[in-house]
Amino acid sequence: MTEKVAVYRREYFNAAHRLNNPALSEEENKRLFGKCNRPNYHGHNYELVVRVAGVVDTVTGYVIDTKILSDLIHEKILNRFDHSNLNLDVPEFKDLNPTVENIAIVIYRILRPLINQSLDLKITLHETDKNFAEFPA
Amino acid sequence: MTEKVAVYRREYFNAAHRLNNPALSEEENKRLFGKCNRPNYHGHNYELVVRVAGVVDTVTGYVIDTKILSDLIHEKILNRFDHSNLNLDVPEFKDLNPTVENIAIVIYRILRPLINQSLDLKITLHETDKNFAEFPA
Amino acid sequence: MTEKVAVYRREYFNAAHRLNNPALSEEENKRLFGKCNRPNYHGHNYELVVRVAGVVDTVTGYVIDTKILSDLIHEKILNRFDHSNLNLDVPEFKDLNPTVENIAIVIYRILRPLINQSLDLKITLHETDKNFAEFPA
Amino acid sequence: MTEKVAVYRREYFNAAHRLNNPALSEEENKRLFGKCNRPNYHGHNYELVVRVAGVVDTVTGYVIDTKILSDLIHEKILNRFDHSNLNLDVPEFKDLNPTVENIAIVIYRILRPLINQSLDLKITLHETDKNFAEFPA
Amino acid sequence: MTEKVAVYRREYFNAAHRLNNPALSEEENKRLFGKCNRPNYHGHNYELVVRVAGVVDTVTGYVIDTKILSDLIHEKILNRFDHSNLNLDVPEFKDLNPTVENIAIVIYRILRPLINQSLDLKITLHETDKNFAEFPA
Amino acid sequence: MTEKVAVYRREYFNAAHRLNNPALSEEENKRLFGKCNRPNYHGHNYELVVRVAGVVDTVTGYVIDTKILSDLIHEKILNRFDHSNLNLDVPEFKDLNPTVENIAIVIYRILRPLINQSLDLKITLHETDKNFAEFPA
Repeated sequence: MTEKVAVYRREYFNAAHRLNNPALSEEENKRLFGKCNRPNYHGHNYELVVRVAGVVDTVTGYVIDTKILSDLIHEKILNRFDHSNLNLDVPEFKDLNPTVENIAIVIYRILRPLINQSLDLKITLHETDKNFAEFPA
Repeated sequence: MTEKVAVYRREYFNAAHRLNNPALSEEENKRLFGKCNRPNYHGHNYELVVRVAGVVDTVTGYVIDTKILSDLIHEKILNRFDHSNLNLDVPEFKDLNPTVENIAIVIYRILRPLINQSLDLKITLHETDKNFAEFPA
Repeated sequence: MTEKVAVYRREYFNAAHRLNNPALSEEENKRLFGKCNRPNYHGHNYELVVRVAGVVDTVTGYVIDTKILSDLIHEKILNRFDHSNLNLDVPEFKDLNPTVENIAIVIYRILRPLINQSLDLKITLHETDKNFAEFPA
Repeated sequence: MTEKVAVYRREYFNAAHRLNNPALSEEENKRLFGKCNRPNYHGHNYELVVRVAGVVDTVTGYVIDTKILSDLIHEKILNRFDHSNLNLDVPEFKDLNPTVENIAIVIYRILRPLINQSLDLKITLHETDKNFAEFPA
Repeated sequence: MTEKVAVYRREYFNAAHRLNNPALSEEENKRLFGKCNRPNYHGHNYELVVRVAGVVDTVTGYVIDTKILSDLIHEKILNRFDHSNLNLDVPEFKDLNPTVENIAIVIYRILRPLINQSLDLKITLHETDKNFAEFPA
Repeated sequence: MTEKVAVYRREYFNAAHRLNNPALSEEENKRLFGKCNRPNYHGHNYELVVRVAGVVDTVTGYVIDTKILSDLIHEKILNRFDHSNLNLDVPEFKDLNPTVENIAIVIYRILRPLINQSLDLKITLHETDKNFAEFPA
């Protein structure tokens, strides 16, 4: 069996954020981001889906042990993002607007070096039931 | 038909909060509320379900027009709670810890006077998939 | 064990309807029911939850066999309501506006005589994710 | 960052329809489409997911502002499809059978010219929890 | 505030079971329980919702700390039921048919003595999307 | 219209299983699979999504009649997997560890010869809300 299989692991974190580009004026931020720019932050229950694709190991029947994948997500992402303020508490967003697109890219860049390069990685991040993003597309 | 029917309306709002009782010390707050007490807030996609029970109007077939109920929820709750920081932006929580129980009670108290007294009112508020509250129980 | 337990069975049906009270003028119907009154009908995926409460049978461990309950719902409700136009195809709504409240009441009245009188019956009917009704309340 | 990110926006509409090919006989339609062909229509809560993929704008952090995307979907799709009878009220289905496949294709064709050609577009349309379609595949 | 509020905690466990009353003959069990009686077991993702109602503590804003409630559910229920065979591994079902009704009752009886008697307790247990039970009703 | 459309059909089955590679020692199995290796099995509500992509038939408006697809899934998969013990009752898993990856591959191999070769086939299988797999990736 050399065709690829994908496994997915879903995890959750709760965080505050606001959309704001520190390089722009207050007015410009308000115009671009509307109520998402409000100064005292709002928040979301983020739903994170990590997809790993590769060949199934014939001994275990796994592409990757989802217990190990879950531990990795907890250690590297949830421990830092859960119950945080993304703008204030997570250094990656100090100069980067925490849109759902950018958060998905940041999560990808954290996890990519930690997962065997023979395996494909894709991140889907749900900000609300209505808005979500996927990287790489 | 004089038996009661209940109608439900579900709405959503996204808000930041932290659990904190301003009357307690910092240490006591940390001990009681753990990561929910973190200083820079976190946030949730709150799911609000408003239940109104009463006799069906024989002309309309409605207990209450859910369009009117939805407008009321938007005007009185969502306009004030959505994309807000509950601790900082919503005066009701200035001295009241915004636990899911207390938020449900506050919403009930705002809506109760605005809905005909012949109708029963109950609030269910989901903070996450795992935690939710109902008032009155 | 003489305390009551409730069992629930969820089923689905898809139907067209429009909100319209034949006893009112066209204008009055339009004013009361807005886009739900449009002449050519619209439709929903209705989600029906039937709750039966009673004492558990000590031989089977059942309040009621949900397979038998499901068969009853299919025979008496889904066979008549599914893939139908409620206003045109279901005689109960010939002179009764098919609001979610009234549909729940009609379903209750059909099922009540068919379920042992020692068992309590309650109907919950979801018209959309946002609107649902329960009878008796 | 020149790799593509996808953003998704989910919206809902409620509509009546029947499966029917006007070019075929009544019997042939009945044979092909079964209960979906019933003359008085049935209906669904359609769940529409619009996927737009492209490079993230470095100023906004957006692929596309989902508020603008949502407004476009409301103006061009929901205003015409929601609370409608697809067969009778939406001209695109006058001679086209409103299967979930065809509705997805029609929505794609309406939106494609209105979204920047540098962005990829994909439509997923859920007719029920069990049946859905995606275009392009 | 002396009116009661209810808080809910949702947890999950995965278990094998078969419906079988050891006091009945094989044929009688087959007749009563159909495919749920198959000898080699089948299984479910059980979704457990624990509802606790009482007066809100004015210091914490809690009816009960859902973290403490969750720890209790893990220690007393999930540690014993999760990834188990209910018939073989959980002594409570040695002579009791593990219907969704009976599992809900067993969970209630385990938790009731461990929760302050001033608080009301109710268990809802989902066996599938279609079948669930509640105790006490 | 020669571009491809995908249709999806979702079905459910409930089964017991344990993760175990008969070629390995008991200790090695325990080390690799942890609580999923427990000897008396556990179980899941499996959610199966079958995706078929191809050109839309201009007469029917279908890629494939999802009624026919559903009947095929019932006959070839659900009749054999539902209310079964995958390890004991389904011969394909006699010497193959029933991980979610392997079950998805087995389902693919059963269905692939039965679906027109001009149509693409993909299987997604959800074992829990948190773990799922897709084949081919």
